[in-house]
Amino acid sequence: MNAGSEIVPFELLHLELVAQALNDTYLDIEKLESIGYSAGYRIVEKLAREGPKFKDELDLLKFICKDFWGAIFRKQIDNLRTNHQGVYVLQDNSFRFLNRVSGDRQYLEASPKFVSLTCGLVRGSLANLGVSAVVTAEITSLPACKFQVQVQRA
Amino acid sequence: MNAGSEIVPFELLHLELVAQALNDTYLDIEKLESIGYSAGYRIVEKLAREGPKFKDELDLLKFICKDFWGAIFRKQIDNLRTNHQGVYVLQDNSFRFLNRVSGDRQYLEASPKFVSLTCGLVRGSLANLGVSAVVTAEITSLPACKFQVQVQRA
Repeated sequence: MNAGSEIVPFELLHLELVAQALNDTYLDIEKLESIGYSAGYRIVEKLAREGPKFKDELDLLKFICKDFWGAIFRKQIDNLRTNHQGVYVLQDNSFRFLNRVSGDRQYLEASPKFVSLTCGLVRGSLANLGVSAVVTAEITSLPACKFQVQVQRA
Repeated sequence: MNAGSEIVPFELLHLELVAQALNDTYLDIEKLESIGYSAGYRIVEKLAREGPKFKDELDLLKFICKDFWGAIFRKQIDNLRTNHQGVYVLQDNSFRFLNRVSGDRQYLEASPKFVSLTCGLVRGSLANLGVSAVVTAEITSLPACKFQVQVQRA
């Protein structure tokens, strides 16, 4: 029996948290975001410990797209765009947390709950690296997802 | 930079849930157990889909110790004992969720929060396999942990 190789406890635990939020029990979008924020903050602490210094903000965002995304989702962000004025759009064409979500209207309406923890992950990682940002997500066509990072200047 | 190989998102997400419970915000031991129960129920659904039929209860518990534990924690339970009357003790000598917990008194007092989600994982997996049980945990010396399964006869 080797079915075990398919099991990804991280995804299932995340799915369970989303399910709790869908049921409107004790978890909501803000709490999911907050859990993600703290987890992202810690993950980057470990990842960047022996990592490179960043030469600029774009360089730092590339680190998020490659190393940070890779450590969590075992893949990289597929496309990174920026307006060079503090807005970055990170596109994942096959976002793992959306892979099991069907396109039913019911799910699409609930989709913010599937991405808010990850918005928090990104915001927390950036915060730990000294960048304050607002992070939002847009689901265009499943399972693709765009995360928009808007850097807050002091 | 290859520090990424050390990052285990599942552990970090779990740690974050425990941290929320330690802060007595919206999570408590019962909710952690309940999250674990649902996740365990789903995990076993995938694991046992093409798995073996169990010849008896002990055989089923061995599956939990090997395949189930392996899929989640990438190791097996180190020791399984039973009184052959429905009580099983599963000992993990190096339980992953306790690996980062220090032996400070403060943490030992909080230790039930580090194991309750896993009690739920075991209870949920057993429930999906048709066995109703009470699952408790005892931490003797860090990072070892004993999980006791008491089968509830109908």
